[in-house]
Amino acid sequence: MYSIGERINGMFKSVGAAIREQDPAPIQELARKQLAAGADALDVNVGPAAADPLVAMEWLVKAIREVTDAPLAIDTTKPEVMRRGLEVAGPGSIINSTKGQQEQLDIFIPMAVELQASVIALTIDEAGIPRDANGRAEIALRAVASAMEHGLDMERLMIDAVILPANVAQPTAGHVLEAIRNVKLLADPAPKTVLGLSNVSQGTQQRPLINRTYLVMALTAGLDAAILDVLDSEMMDAMITAELLLNQAVYCDDFLRAYRSR
Amino acid sequence: MYSIGERINGMFKSVGAAIREQDPAPIQELARKQLAAGADALDVNVGPAAADPLVAMEWLVKAIREVTDAPLAIDTTKPEVMRRGLEVAGPGSIINSTKGQQEQLDIFIPMAVELQASVIALTIDEAGIPRDANGRAEIALRAVASAMEHGLDMERLMIDAVILPANVAQPTAGHVLEAIRNVKLLADPAPKTVLGLSNVSQGTQQRPLINRTYLVMALTAGLDAAILDVLDSEMMDAMITAELLLNQAVYCDDFLRAYRSR
Repeated sequence: MYSIGERINGMFKSVGAAIREQDPAPIQELARKQLAAGADALDVNVGPAAADPLVAMEWLVKAIREVTDAPLAIDTTKPEVMRRGLEVAGPGSIINSTKGQQEQLDIFIPMAVELQASVIALTIDEAGIPRDANGRAEIALRAVASAMEHGLDMERLMIDAVILPANVAQPTAGHVLEAIRNVKLLADPAPKTVLGLSNVSQGTQQRPLINRTYLVMALTAGLDAAILDVLDSEMMDAMITAELLLNQAVYCDDFLRAYRSR
Repeated sequence: MYSIGERINGMFKSVGAAIREQDPAPIQELARKQLAAGADALDVNVGPAAADPLVAMEWLVKAIREVTDAPLAIDTTKPEVMRRGLEVAGPGSIINSTKGQQEQLDIFIPMAVELQASVIALTIDEAGIPRDANGRAEIALRAVASAMEHGLDMERLMIDAVILPANVAQPTAGHVLEAIRNVKLLADPAPKTVLGLSNVSQGTQQRPLINRTYLVMALTAGLDAAILDVLDSEMMDAMITAELLLNQAVYCDDFLRAYRSR
């Protein structure tokens, strides 16, 4: 699975403070720790508190780029902040995210092509979050058509079927599993699938348990990537073990360590 | 999920000793503990060491029946030991197990009908364990046909697609998931699916982690029942959480305790 570390987010108190004080050290430490824990890419979100999100994003990406060339997922809804983040981060970045209405796709998919980025398309549109798996597949199909129209390599389109907290929308977990399976049938080659995993447990009393259990379920359904807390080592153990059982890694007795020392 | 506790098995040293010494206390304690931990039924296996397996099975079932009326899965390959176990345990027991060759099915499926038992049919036959999911479905279909022929209620047929240890047959875990999905298409109503879970981790260095991860994967594929170590509370937590996320139980903040106090 392609792991996108979620921790560089201004929503976290220490990250928000570092952004406000323009102190790169805590950010760079989080970048290093997440990569060491198995992150393939790092999400970058300035959070709600940044006075000027464009300035904050530019500073944040530069701070991370001082310590790693890993792909960055620029996490903002604002097209101008997205563009600046992608430009500073360089080719191979990830747009996180576009919604599924046509006018959003028409902004972010050409931007992905222009700046050689991948793009996460949420199955949300002007009507909101669909009530079932079919509604999610319909929006995903719109994103697939848009990728084809604009010449985006299908493997650079990542469909996020939008998981909701288990305590407020319990049937959603099943709908998202079904959507993950169905997205693979929309095109050949198929788009990738991704989840913002932690949302499944938002507001519940058993966050790590729910996160790691649902991650294994989604991997079983064919999930390709997730934005998640790679510093949760029990969850990463579950992920590594699921990949082993899906025959995506070769068994050895010390398979947990073997994965981490890739 | 229907949980069949695996611990009353003469293969375990303390159980083997209790059977040899005809000391019911440790057996009865294991029965109580497994039921308290969430077992719906208890597997009963005299183990390889019993001098006279028929006498040992009769004694063992009687010892358990002194403390519980829970369904028992009589675990033996010997038809005469099976029959005695079922007779002493009473209606609603489980035959664990028959293999999938016709002559075995012709013994155990009529026995299940006669003694009002369910029957676990392994997807193994005279040619051994199939190399893939299709081979497993073929044997399952033979068991389905035999159940129809002999008038066994389809919901009393439990197909076990035979998981092998991840360290010796790594692709099997995927084949078994596919078989679990496919078995549901063989008849309407469909037979149940079951797994002897612990075998997936036999001989590996991470038994609990592999067991609980594969259990979540199998539940996602639609598994109905498992023979497993219900005393492994981390695994039971994973099972309860997977059921919650499959919308088979209603969320409450204290969902782990709510399940256990059913």
